[in-house]
Amino acid sequence: MRRILVVHGPNLNWLGKREPEIYGTLTLDEINRRIEALATGEGAEVRFFQSNHEGALIDAIQGAADWADAIVINPGGLTHTSVALRDALAGPALPVIEVHLSNIHRREGFRRRSLIAEVAVGQISGFGAESYLLGLRAALELLKLEEG
Amino acid sequence: MRRILVVHGPNLNWLGKREPEIYGTLTLDEINRRIEALATGEGAEVRFFQSNHEGALIDAIQGAADWADAIVINPGGLTHTSVALRDALAGPALPVIEVHLSNIHRREGFRRRSLIAEVAVGQISGFGAESYLLGLRAALELLKLEEG
Amino acid sequence: MRRILVVHGPNLNWLGKREPEIYGTLTLDEINRRIEALATGEGAEVRFFQSNHEGALIDAIQGAADWADAIVINPGGLTHTSVALRDALAGPALPVIEVHLSNIHRREGFRRRSLIAEVAVGQISGFGAESYLLGLRAALELLKLEEG
Amino acid sequence: MRRILVVHGPNLNWLGKREPEIYGTLTLDEINRRIEALATGEGAEVRFFQSNHEGALIDAIQGAADWADAIVINPGGLTHTSVALRDALAGPALPVIEVHLSNIHRREGFRRRSLIAEVAVGQISGFGAESYLLGLRAALELLKLEEG
Amino acid sequence: MRRILVVHGPNLNWLGKREPEIYGTLTLDEINRRIEALATGEGAEVRFFQSNHEGALIDAIQGAADWADAIVINPGGLTHTSVALRDALAGPALPVIEVHLSNIHRREGFRRRSLIAEVAVGQISGFGAESYLLGLRAALELLKLEEG
Amino acid sequence: MRRILVVHGPNLNWLGKREPEIYGTLTLDEINRRIEALATGEGAEVRFFQSNHEGALIDAIQGAADWADAIVINPGGLTHTSVALRDALAGPALPVIEVHLSNIHRREGFRRRSLIAEVAVGQISGFGAESYLLGLRAALELLKLEEG
Amino acid sequence: MRRILVVHGPNLNWLGKREPEIYGTLTLDEINRRIEALATGEGAEVRFFQSNHEGALIDAIQGAADWADAIVINPGGLTHTSVALRDALAGPALPVIEVHLSNIHRREGFRRRSLIAEVAVGQISGFGAESYLLGLRAALELLKLEEG
Amino acid sequence: MRRILVVHGPNLNWLGKREPEIYGTLTLDEINRRIEALATGEGAEVRFFQSNHEGALIDAIQGAADWADAIVINPGGLTHTSVALRDALAGPALPVIEVHLSNIHRREGFRRRSLIAEVAVGQISGFGAESYLLGLRAALELLKLEEG
Amino acid sequence: MRRILVVHGPNLNWLGKREPEIYGTLTLDEINRRIEALATGEGAEVRFFQSNHEGALIDAIQGAADWADAIVINPGGLTHTSVALRDALAGPALPVIEVHLSNIHRREGFRRRSLIAEVAVGQISGFGAESYLLGLRAALELLKLEEG
Amino acid sequence: MRRILVVHGPNLNWLGKREPEIYGTLTLDEINRRIEALATGEGAEVRFFQSNHEGALIDAIQGAADWADAIVINPGGLTHTSVALRDALAGPALPVIEVHLSNIHRREGFRRRSLIAEVAVGQISGFGAESYLLGLRAALELLKLEEG
Amino acid sequence: MRRILVVHGPNLNWLGKREPEIYGTLTLDEINRRIEALATGEGAEVRFFQSNHEGALIDAIQGAADWADAIVINPGGLTHTSVALRDALAGPALPVIEVHLSNIHRREGFRRRSLIAEVAVGQISGFGAESYLLGLRAALELLKLEEG
Amino acid sequence: MRRILVVHGPNLNWLGKREPEIYGTLTLDEINRRIEALATGEGAEVRFFQSNHEGALIDAIQGAADWADAIVINPGGLTHTSVALRDALAGPALPVIEVHLSNIHRREGFRRRSLIAEVAVGQISGFGAESYLLGLRAALELLKLEEG
Repeated sequence: MRRILVVHGPNLNWLGKREPEIYGTLTLDEINRRIEALATGEGAEVRFFQSNHEGALIDAIQGAADWADAIVINPGGLTHTSVALRDALAGPALPVIEVHLSNIHRREGFRRRSLIAEVAVGQISGFGAESYLLGLRAALELLKLEEG
Repeated sequence: MRRILVVHGPNLNWLGKREPEIYGTLTLDEINRRIEALATGEGAEVRFFQSNHEGALIDAIQGAADWADAIVINPGGLTHTSVALRDALAGPALPVIEVHLSNIHRREGFRRRSLIAEVAVGQISGFGAESYLLGLRAALELLKLEEG
Repeated sequence: MRRILVVHGPNLNWLGKREPEIYGTLTLDEINRRIEALATGEGAEVRFFQSNHEGALIDAIQGAADWADAIVINPGGLTHTSVALRDALAGPALPVIEVHLSNIHRREGFRRRSLIAEVAVGQISGFGAESYLLGLRAALELLKLEEG
Repeated sequence: MRRILVVHGPNLNWLGKREPEIYGTLTLDEINRRIEALATGEGAEVRFFQSNHEGALIDAIQGAADWADAIVINPGGLTHTSVALRDALAGPALPVIEVHLSNIHRREGFRRRSLIAEVAVGQISGFGAESYLLGLRAALELLKLEEG
Repeated sequence: MRRILVVHGPNLNWLGKREPEIYGTLTLDEINRRIEALATGEGAEVRFFQSNHEGALIDAIQGAADWADAIVINPGGLTHTSVALRDALAGPALPVIEVHLSNIHRREGFRRRSLIAEVAVGQISGFGAESYLLGLRAALELLKLEEG
Repeated sequence: MRRILVVHGPNLNWLGKREPEIYGTLTLDEINRRIEALATGEGAEVRFFQSNHEGALIDAIQGAADWADAIVINPGGLTHTSVALRDALAGPALPVIEVHLSNIHRREGFRRRSLIAEVAVGQISGFGAESYLLGLRAALELLKLEEG
Repeated sequence: MRRILVVHGPNLNWLGKREPEIYGTLTLDEINRRIEALATGEGAEVRFFQSNHEGALIDAIQGAADWADAIVINPGGLTHTSVALRDALAGPALPVIEVHLSNIHRREGFRRRSLIAEVAVGQISGFGAESYLLGLRAALELLKLEEG
Repeated sequence: MRRILVVHGPNLNWLGKREPEIYGTLTLDEINRRIEALATGEGAEVRFFQSNHEGALIDAIQGAADWADAIVINPGGLTHTSVALRDALAGPALPVIEVHLSNIHRREGFRRRSLIAEVAVGQISGFGAESYLLGLRAALELLKLEEG
Repeated sequence: MRRILVVHGPNLNWLGKREPEIYGTLTLDEINRRIEALATGEGAEVRFFQSNHEGALIDAIQGAADWADAIVINPGGLTHTSVALRDALAGPALPVIEVHLSNIHRREGFRRRSLIAEVAVGQISGFGAESYLLGLRAALELLKLEEG
Repeated sequence: MRRILVVHGPNLNWLGKREPEIYGTLTLDEINRRIEALATGEGAEVRFFQSNHEGALIDAIQGAADWADAIVINPGGLTHTSVALRDALAGPALPVIEVHLSNIHRREGFRRRSLIAEVAVGQISGFGAESYLLGLRAALELLKLEEG
Repeated sequence: MRRILVVHGPNLNWLGKREPEIYGTLTLDEINRRIEALATGEGAEVRFFQSNHEGALIDAIQGAADWADAIVINPGGLTHTSVALRDALAGPALPVIEVHLSNIHRREGFRRRSLIAEVAVGQISGFGAESYLLGLRAALELLKLEEG
Repeated sequence: MRRILVVHGPNLNWLGKREPEIYGTLTLDEINRRIEALATGEGAEVRFFQSNHEGALIDAIQGAADWADAIVINPGGLTHTSVALRDALAGPALPVIEVHLSNIHRREGFRRRSLIAEVAVGQISGFGAESYLLGLRAALELLKLEEG
């Protein structure tokens, strides 16, 4: 059974309340339930972690390195600023899928550069909650390919 | 029945032959067959168009504006250089999904900027042929949402 | 009798349909008829050429070099990206007038730089269809001065 | 009867004397007479204002806001440096037409950026004295359109 | 009664000890007492929060969103680097006032750009502890205006 | 009795008329009356000077150097472009307070850089007319501190 | 027998007519004849392809991948702008020799950067028609070395 | 007896596991034991602190300001992004020695700029675990010099 | 008899009072007397003009074009910002000598670029009042050379 | 008989030993012998000069100005840094051919800019030792053309 | 016995005389004696070379390639400008240790970029004469590791 | 008696022969004789040093530090590239006067930045041989002032 760690960065605990015209009206719990439903349907196990603390995110990524087969992460505002998070993700030998609710490539200039992208297999950006589901599918497909 | 135009930009007719360490070993025909299979399974219709000519791509996008409900496009090298293709995609009122085989955000600097992104709903980048399938799913999900 | 080649770049065949809040509601045919009417009134002859293909535009410019006395061109999205079109316009010894429907100097940063401007006598930008008519007047005035 | 304020920025009082290979041999009075002739022919009224003082130009623009229906301005060297002039032009609800004798887009780098362009309807650049006449035509055409 | 959350970013707990030639000799407690005295005098209630942890600051801002009417924040070094803090401040519908002890616009280049400014009503910079008092006044004045 | 010179740069004589969605609906006279009322209440004397002419502003600053104890200035569009105004403000040994009606740090890129900031004690930006009142308070507080 | 594809980009069909002070007075046919003569003398076979269409150039490069042992290309204006052409040249496992009539490294800034160079063995620039002959020699020498 | 605080930034707790081709195979405990051995040999006392949390690092630096005579710090990924950490290090009057396992000046562009360097006495970069030992020696030598 | 116009830009009327550690303690009158003494000694005539108004400086330069044989100018803060002043100096066919009291090439970045330099024969920078005397000598030497 | 000076810049005396994967395995002597053989075959005379000293290279270029008809130079690392060498090459009225062993346009960013290119007829880059032979041929062809 | 070449770049022969507030008061001879003492203590042999000539430094590095086991170099001002020196250091297969007396990362912008760093194992910067001793230790430690 | 060292950088030994349209027709000997004549007239002693070698120039500057009272230097092409020369000039406590024959501020972009300027009292640029004479006068005037 494949195991996926889903990581939510800063402010994602506020989904549904904060700037809904950009980030949609679903709460993080609702999104997590959808991710779980898809995972169950695909015979995979997921765990969730959210924090507003860069350090806690790094701790969690290090801690899950033995358990998880892949990481799906929405790094939130740390996408553009955190070399430390990037280094944490580069550490384990796990595939990393980077997802974003909004299309960061058509927003402010400083949101267009992802420090995380350089350590990720791929990036999915702009589909709201659906970005996570696509990211989960991408992760499972990758693991299937690796197993041959 | 939803109708999706899938557009392949320059050099994608060479897939499977050209730089397989970057772009994978599947041919474009094989990818198109997978896309078609997924579309059929989801009750959607797809059409394909590939050209090495920027002008032909623009003609095709204009021509399909009446038929298609959404566009999934891998603009290839034009991603980074073609304002004209961007303007063509901005023309119709259709959602545009931008896909890339390789993760353009970890390649050469000039590949990290997409002129297309600013007129696309979202971008999927780095999952090889799977990028197209994820893009098709994203398009269908969008249309479902729009219909309410 | 003075002869003017009027060249329309990519996506201008879509005028009236595409982004009318930026480009207005007149079709290209309607604009061409207005240009022709003005030309006739001024005792000049005009020919029109539109293509979405950079190469076809270059071919047309080369082909008309013997016939035309001046060129009025709206290079569309190629304004900002095409060194090849610029080189084609620099080739013949004809005056080139660059026109734009929207005021490119108050739009996105990448639209503010014109590669064409450096080979053009002058530039008219921002007056919608009227930009073409002003461009035609400018061309005729120039030819009158040259004949002096 | 439409009323147009024609504003000439610094050094334009020297036309005909200064750098004629760039700016032509007509004096400002001769240009003003041509503008007036065209205006009269088109049933419009024009007033002229020239100053080498940025502040005087701003005063004049503020002062004419109640009288004029549109402004045709050649801001001279202030085009590239004056946020204050730009703010003055943005103040009234009048259409602004920016004109230049030489084609500023093929001159020194610092002349290619216009601070004025972002508050102007359009820009006409490179046709010598004819730039003013085209600017006047553009202004009258705009007013005609607005009146419907 | 109006309620203001006053947030102090990293290292501000060290005020009075650290680099007094730049930041002054008052301790944070002394500053807080002054803020409180002014608030009381103006019939407002204030709460204080200081942390050296970006994540704790984000938690506090989220937590106070229901209580506070406005936020006065000195983001310290995070001003220039934290997209996550910016996103947290953009979340609630509260006015944000950004304050700085030193005039950040005359210090090192990297201190001149504020990521916070784009989500703040206004910025007060350079008046030492007085910056906070001015910020409180500005917040109260804003709330008065909003209430009409 | 403390004496404050309040300087208004170009276009501020138009307040209330020009772009009220950015600059508010109060006229300059109304703002000056509010400043005067606050000054009187605080036992200070104010003088006002407004000009659209950079040179006149410099003359006034030089002229008031003997009379004033501090300068509160809203340099308008000259904030971003005038080295000469900056040099004038750097001349006398008086504290300078820079104020702006709108928050210049969230507007166009060229408005984010202040040449004046490097010669000012501090900057207040974004609170409309209230910016002046806060600036006056800051000036008086500074003078109180200097006197010990 | 070695086989070399010689590719001429946009506007090179106009050689001898267009800007002879930069590009010389030989026509493309004359240059091709010289190349052919040298090839024959060296026991090699050459084919020529010229187009003003980026897409046609890509088609031709793809088409000749099976026939040719090396490619000598003058990409014209596409040198500086076409990622798609670059990707086409990177596709086959053939050595690519980039040639230019004029010395692009002493012309306008935008001509000094070659997107093609990164996929080419080497570059020859500035010797007029002789650049092609040197390019052919370089190609033949390379093939000789590879064969050992 | 001299007292040195040795601070390890984010991800350094993972040493020996993470990217050993860049960072070596020693664990942090092994490195700390070597540092301690050297300190003991030199008659100095060391304390260690590691955290993945920027805020915790700042807390620790503030807390140790009274105990320590010098700080040896490897700020990890925060080197390039944390103004807050820099400000914390600038606070106490202690000499700061910046060390890095890899040579940051030959890695990715964003790793070449150290915000910490401007508040450090010196920097040692590229010698793996040995960087710490050299850093300790440098610190002790500095303290010896200061004591005269 | 040679005639030299000596022009002083903004704030130079304040010499001796303003920032003497940068600009010296001589007043403008004292400097003018020294210039006059040198001129008289060399058999030349000088006139002086100072203004804080860009427009007045332009008026004066235009007005003196018939009288003067050369211009020695210290443009003050306008050196770095005024295209209009530059254009005025480029107008007449007179040699222009640019002088500065301080060495602008070792001051703030924005002072190192002179818009005036491109229309001046030469530049003398950093010698205090002596810069003017050297400038006068340079002007006289130039005129001597031109006369042969 | 044509006379060509062949100049080798710093480190080229080390050819065959230093970084052979970039620069090849031939020694400088072997390359010089090949150049000489080709020159003899073409009825030309060559002289060689190598130095690791910028000044010695300049001396040699000045010294050979009377003897040589053309210069073929591989400036090595000075290509990108030496204005002095560039000025020396610009001095005599001789054609200069710039050659490089590796293709500098696909190496590190700082190697892509040649200060020498702007004073050279042309540039040949990337063909190993063959670059010199092509450079010699180009020089001889140029001299032939000049002689008509 | 290990052999280390210690190289001192331009102006280091002036140590103790030149700018002692930046570079300290020890002379180069005194530093060399300390280095030698440490080397002797560690059972290593050192040789010294100083020159103000880039070319002489390159000659010395080439000449010592057979003798030395490692190079410790303070390239002085050439650190930031000499591609030729960098290429010389990249030539031999010896480890290179870059040292600087002052902390170059907190000085002028142009001193923060080291061309040498990219060919060095590591860099030690800011410890005065101690930087050399630390560099020697680093070199010896490296050689010990390589020998296993 | 005041003693001035006059230093000429690379290629200045070629004056009169090299690019006379930029640098004039006088030889270096003729210029030196003029300098000497002026010095003698002013009761000063001059020595001359020219070299094409950066290192030799540095040696000479170090060597003359005890003899000279001031240095007048035309660094030639090293002006823009040599940190080492700059550091040499910063070493002694002598005033440095930088002179240039041509006006470097209106030539190519790379000639507008002087590394030397930051260690020079002042700069004189654009007056041909006269630049040296003005530089000598400036030096003598400075020494006179220093002596009081």
